[in-house]
Amino acid sequence: KKLKIASIPGDGIGKEVVPAAIDVLETISDLHGGLSFDFTEFPYSCDYYLEHGEMMPEDGLKRLSDFDSIFLGAVGDANLVPDHISLWGLLIKIRREFEQTINVRPAKQLPGIQSPLVNPNDFDLLVVRENSEGEYSSIGGRIYRDEDEIAIQNNVFSRKATERVMRFAFDLATKRQKRVTSATKSNGIVYSMPFWDEVFKDVSNDYPDVETDQQHIDALTAFFVTNPSRFDVLVASNLFGDILSDVGAGIMGSIGVAPAGNINVNGKYPSMFEPVHGSAPDIIGKGIANPIGQIWTAKMLLDHHGEEEIGQVLLDVIEETTSDRIVTADLGGKHTTKEVTDEIIKRLKAK
Amino acid sequence: KKLKIASIPGDGIGKEVVPAAIDVLETISDLHGGLSFDFTEFPYSCDYYLEHGEMMPEDGLKRLSDFDSIFLGAVGDANLVPDHISLWGLLIKIRREFEQTINVRPAKQLPGIQSPLVNPNDFDLLVVRENSEGEYSSIGGRIYRDEDEIAIQNNVFSRKATERVMRFAFDLATKRQKRVTSATKSNGIVYSMPFWDEVFKDVSNDYPDVETDQQHIDALTAFFVTNPSRFDVLVASNLFGDILSDVGAGIMGSIGVAPAGNINVNGKYPSMFEPVHGSAPDIIGKGIANPIGQIWTAKMLLDHHGEEEIGQVLLDVIEETTSDRIVTADLGGKHTTKEVTDEIIKRLKAK
Ligand SMILES: CC(C)[C@H](C(=O)O)[C@@H](O)C(=O)O
Ligand SMILES: CC(C)[C@H](C(=O)O)[C@@H](O)C(=O)O
Repeated sequence: KKLKIASIPGDGIGKEVVPAAIDVLETISDLHGGLSFDFTEFPYSCDYYLEHGEMMPEDGLKRLSDFDSIFLGAVGDANLVPDHISLWGLLIKIRREFEQTINVRPAKQLPGIQSPLVNPNDFDLLVVRENSEGEYSSIGGRIYRDEDEIAIQNNVFSRKATERVMRFAFDLATKRQKRVTSATKSNGIVYSMPFWDEVFKDVSNDYPDVETDQQHIDALTAFFVTNPSRFDVLVASNLFGDILSDVGAGIMGSIGVAPAGNINVNGKYPSMFEPVHGSAPDIIGKGIANPIGQIWTAKMLLDHHGEEEIGQVLLDVIEETTSDRIVTADLGGKHTTKEVTDEIIKRLKAK
Repeated sequence: KKLKIASIPGDGIGKEVVPAAIDVLETISDLHGGLSFDFTEFPYSCDYYLEHGEMMPEDGLKRLSDFDSIFLGAVGDANLVPDHISLWGLLIKIRREFEQTINVRPAKQLPGIQSPLVNPNDFDLLVVRENSEGEYSSIGGRIYRDEDEIAIQNNVFSRKATERVMRFAFDLATKRQKRVTSATKSNGIVYSMPFWDEVFKDVSNDYPDVETDQQHIDALTAFFVTNPSRFDVLVASNLFGDILSDVGAGIMGSIGVAPAGNINVNGKYPSMFEPVHGSAPDIIGKGIANPIGQIWTAKMLLDHHGEEEIGQVLLDVIEETTSDRIVTADLGGKHTTKEVTDEIIKRLKAK
């Protein structure tokens, strides 16, 4: 099996951690005769914008559409290009145009890593986020000037997208602990969220073996702090999933380890794998960026293409490495990006 | 000075902690000749709804409008009355009709209380939440049926309300550490949140002595876990303030200690003081509800009426009590509501 992967290192530390994770994937391909990768790098980024006046060329999406998956580092550096241009011109554009309607983000306590929580209690959860509509709609505007000005933004929730993300979450749950928690706020947001709750109820009827629960987003974020191990799979709107996955990264000890996948479920376009962290302009060029988020994201890419067995080996190796405290500064270690990556590669070879 | 207070114990443990906090306020009035209270209790609650078919009588608001402040316990018990009826018929109705456009919610590490964080580092922050519009608008609806159904909900942000909550936050910051952090999400929510950022910039120009910072809500909730002590005052929209204040309560160790004030700033109507916690139907009648949230809320009522000195004494006494571990089960103690309250009263008398 040969996978054609478009790599987009993007901005900042994306340029440091993507090559590291590609080294890991190449090692895996060397070790497993049956699997190989054909990487093509695309320079789309804020630097590209400064040179060309756009985040990617007009035929950029067309070029990317030929690949089996996209492997992305980080997009955005507000010192170079305003966020709304860099993100909506690349990251969110790809998510939308390639119908990557679902964003999957695991959060799991890693051995050897000090969680900021006193009792992390081996949490292991999965945030399944709607990735195409909801609070991130591009419908809205303003009226009046000065003290009378009003800005309106629409939240748009379709049954199609809502059902789709929920079914995806329930399907994942059947392979895990068989528990799905829905993030809502129907006590305060009285049109979109009661609708969300209704669809959740309907979908849950099709999964009698899965235990369900629904919590308001305010209480839910607090539970991530007080008792994260009570959760298995969570399903959330675009905004609520965004928030929950960052809190999930926070309780892991560093946003630098959190992986993510933007999944196209209709098979028409490639999916995109990108870690939760950003471009971290403050540590560019120091060689200390944490590569684990990107490498764990590579595991999600493997899983997505049916290589769950190798994916599991990779996660095991990541956990052995953190357990032995071969970690970067954000995790309280002194190792470089390269040292952590080399250690993971060495351990993969020893398996 | 005599303060006319309308007390609404409401539902569940509200009926246990409101009387406790009133005992504390009465003690304060006995000790300080210059201050007295005239309490009138109103039975508005889910029980009231079951008897009368409404959460409060038609002239309920009119009756409440005569008071200097409202002292509320908790509203809502989904086992008795659906949330959207109980909350929108009482809690949110009072917030809106009495133009309580700002919600103030402190989060502070209390001595003797185990935070769920390894390094709470003596955090002491204040969430200032817009309380009348934004994501909690009552504008929206649905179209189409079955698989084509779409729900739309408007977020409405006015310059008036946005500026008002921001000025309130900056004014509070000038009396504290002089730092204000704005909660935004302008990288994903592209109409309302860039507007929010613009107003924040405008208002901050009027406060050159206050340091400002702006963070996306996803990162911000994670920072509440990884480094809450970096914050002083935060200003947030209705939804973001709701989320941040619950995470704030979470890192304090129990939602049972978190206080709040719904502030009317134009002086036309009473303000309302209610703790962050809900009615906790699971522990009703056991006498173990934590009274600290309600008693700390009483301190906010005192502050609001210019009694900051007594308010500070009350907070000191609360902290001495937690420091000596005279606390309820939610904080890992064995004391009852009454024992904690009596201890606070005893210590007040000894001051
Ligand atoms: C009960 C609910 C509507 C309310 C809110 O979201 O405002 C509560 O969570 C709060 O924070 O007071
Ligand atoms: C950069 C931003 C628009 C994005 C989002 O909110 O989707 C990011 O926070 C994420 O979670 O991938």
